[in-house]
Amino acid sequence: MAFSPLVDELVESLRCLPGVGQKTAQRMAFHLLEKGRSGGERLAGALAGAMSGVRRCERCQNFSDTPVCGICENPKRNNGTVCVVESPSDLLAIEQAGGYDGGYFVLMGHLSPIDGIGPADIGIECLLDRVATDAVEELILATNPTIEGEATAHYIADRLDGRNVLVTRLAHGIPVGGELGYVDGFTLTHAFRGRKPLAE
Amino acid sequence: MAFSPLVDELVESLRCLPGVGQKTAQRMAFHLLEKGRSGGERLAGALAGAMSGVRRCERCQNFSDTPVCGICENPKRNNGTVCVVESPSDLLAIEQAGGYDGGYFVLMGHLSPIDGIGPADIGIECLLDRVATDAVEELILATNPTIEGEATAHYIADRLDGRNVLVTRLAHGIPVGGELGYVDGFTLTHAFRGRKPLAE
Repeated sequence: MAFSPLVDELVESLRCLPGVGQKTAQRMAFHLLEKGRSGGERLAGALAGAMSGVRRCERCQNFSDTPVCGICENPKRNNGTVCVVESPSDLLAIEQAGGYDGGYFVLMGHLSPIDGIGPADIGIECLLDRVATDAVEELILATNPTIEGEATAHYIADRLDGRNVLVTRLAHGIPVGGELGYVDGFTLTHAFRGRKPLAE
Repeated sequence: MAFSPLVDELVESLRCLPGVGQKTAQRMAFHLLEKGRSGGERLAGALAGAMSGVRRCERCQNFSDTPVCGICENPKRNNGTVCVVESPSDLLAIEQAGGYDGGYFVLMGHLSPIDGIGPADIGIECLLDRVATDAVEELILATNPTIEGEATAHYIADRLDGRNVLVTRLAHGIPVGGELGYVDGFTLTHAFRGRKPLAE
């Protein structure tokens, strides 16, 4: 490239962001240099801070600045219920929906033997320990409704078989506000099977 | 947000990048924290370096680490020809195409009275000074073929009227490898007007 080494290095580094190729990285670099120097400096600081300061919560494996995260430390939350999710963004979606006041356990992935990801890699042993020591009453398996997510949920349920804990899975059905004509067959079948009396 | 302040600040800072909203910023932050810590640290360093170290070349206004950029300092380049472009990415496209060995002048924008951008803001006086002092023989106006780009080109040409310098504009016509059926009417009209004898 005909540019300065600093610009070259910036473009090359921006490509570590997901979905950013050569052209987008160039556009981002030029934008920051032309119009967003203060934003770029702020981003540099935020990146350095987050990369060195963010760790995993010891209880729920979620990202946290402190050894135990804010949700786990919150005394108002019901520790008898634990919701198991695959990623921090799933946790965020549930938090933003509101209405859930229990704890979480973030697997940071799902079981995937083909990629060599086994139970130990996603912290299932930690989860089982927590269920035993914290006297968890209900474990809500909120892994994604994909093949790997379902397999992970079934594996966790199997490991808890015989223990005194209620294991539940999020309901499948028609999205609220959705139109029947646009719902896929599998979802419709699940919605039929899971139908409920109107009075409930 | 239910997350750590460091993650929140990272997500917020990432939104200064062009085309990055809340969801994309979240995805980028989680990606860096989960799988790309080394990339994130490199990006933090590159950003800090570029934001403080990259300046504008004194001769051509392009981004540069040094007072005068590599292209302007290169003795192999023909200083008698100057190509005027709107942005560093235009310069990059011309450099990557190869075949041009003259100098550049990067306006970093175009004339736009509606946004309050006049000749002084895009350095046209510097360009005119350079044409006079460097004994420039040809000035190639490679601003974009938009209304503002054309206006900028015409303004520069008007200001050079009477001076002993050849002012040229890039040719309009059918893109190489393009199909006639997909070419717009304006381009076709230009291509007809600019037709050349086959022998040339």
